[in-house]
Amino acid sequence: MPGLFISFEGIDGCGKTTQVERVAEIIRGTGREVVSVRDPGSTRVADLVRNMLLDRGNSDIDARTELFLYLACRAQLVEQCIRPALGRGQVVISDRFSDSTLAYQGYGRMLGVELVRQANRIATAGLTPNVTLLIDIPVNVARDRRSAQMVDRLEAEEGNFHERVRNGFLEIARREPERVAVIDGTLPLDEVTNAIVDTLALRVPVMLGDVIKSA
Amino acid sequence: MPGLFISFEGIDGCGKTTQVERVAEIIRGTGREVVSVRDPGSTRVADLVRNMLLDRGNSDIDARTELFLYLACRAQLVEQCIRPALGRGQVVISDRFSDSTLAYQGYGRMLGVELVRQANRIATAGLTPNVTLLIDIPVNVARDRRSAQMVDRLEAEEGNFHERVRNGFLEIARREPERVAVIDGTLPLDEVTNAIVDTLALRVPVMLGDVIKSA
Repeated sequence: MPGLFISFEGIDGCGKTTQVERVAEIIRGTGREVVSVRDPGSTRVADLVRNMLLDRGNSDIDARTELFLYLACRAQLVEQCIRPALGRGQVVISDRFSDSTLAYQGYGRMLGVELVRQANRIATAGLTPNVTLLIDIPVNVARDRRSAQMVDRLEAEEGNFHERVRNGFLEIARREPERVAVIDGTLPLDEVTNAIVDTLALRVPVMLGDVIKSA
Repeated sequence: MPGLFISFEGIDGCGKTTQVERVAEIIRGTGREVVSVRDPGSTRVADLVRNMLLDRGNSDIDARTELFLYLACRAQLVEQCIRPALGRGQVVISDRFSDSTLAYQGYGRMLGVELVRQANRIATAGLTPNVTLLIDIPVNVARDRRSAQMVDRLEAEEGNFHERVRNGFLEIARREPERVAVIDGTLPLDEVTNAIVDTLALRVPVMLGDVIKSA
């Protein structure tokens, strides 16, 4: 079986981390080996950087500094985890990937979409997910869900930032409909999972289709 | 007086850190306020990243990860230290800047000179030193000088890496002779300092010339 690279995207609180775990379990149930990663994260370097980014004490981090730190994490993740796993024919599921940088830094912080696109290409050396699942929910729904949780530096952002990020994700989906599927994240958890499984069965049938349908 | 931005470049062991201190002292003696920085470094974020890069335990850092970490440090340094100091009319002296990334990552690690040039422009938002002093010494001279010191991860590089870096610096100087002055770093310390002072007096006379000549 060839390797398969699936990314999950969406604003904080959209529920993607839960879905990543469920979908990984379902695909494992079909007999495929699954490697779950999160971006930024999943490497020693990225964990150090991630802690730095989420530390409220580092609130003076410049928007371009932040961009490059995310790209550093991604470059390491691609080389150290994703490419080797795909080379072994495994299924890689990533909780966030390049689209997050495009949505948060390009659209949200307005660093320039084309600039972030170019920088992403350098960081990934051109690696793109086979399928991207965008779990979309309105910003106010995400905010209500998050209120019960720890609020880190990123989530403390105010103003229209999260609206720009959400719209950025939707714009990416409009630009690349063959790669990015929009999933309604306001549905009950099980329905979201079903929608994701249906999407995978439809989009990568050769890789997962017949097997996953019976899951 | 307008701000003035001077960078020092060269391979490890070329003696630039000593010269940065001397030149800062001489310029201070003329009554100008001097801000000395080092790149990577001089900000909280950059110090965290710098320690990560110099840690031998992180020897699995990918070349592109390293590139982005350096760029993150530079972006933060420019926004937090250099631009504000130049805005106050101060003289900024930086121990390394964009040319180091071009020489080490572009030429040394062969990530592509044009790619690194573009990435540098994003990180600095186009800020370029008024004068760059390249302290040039042959690689074997630098190696002999370093042998007595702690060897960190970067300095543990083998092969032709340092030759490519040195030649990269010289190529940058050839491409931008109006900005980059090559100083012979094999001369005795005092003569190197004199050569630097003469260069500054010649290249930025309006900013320092008459004053620095009498130093």
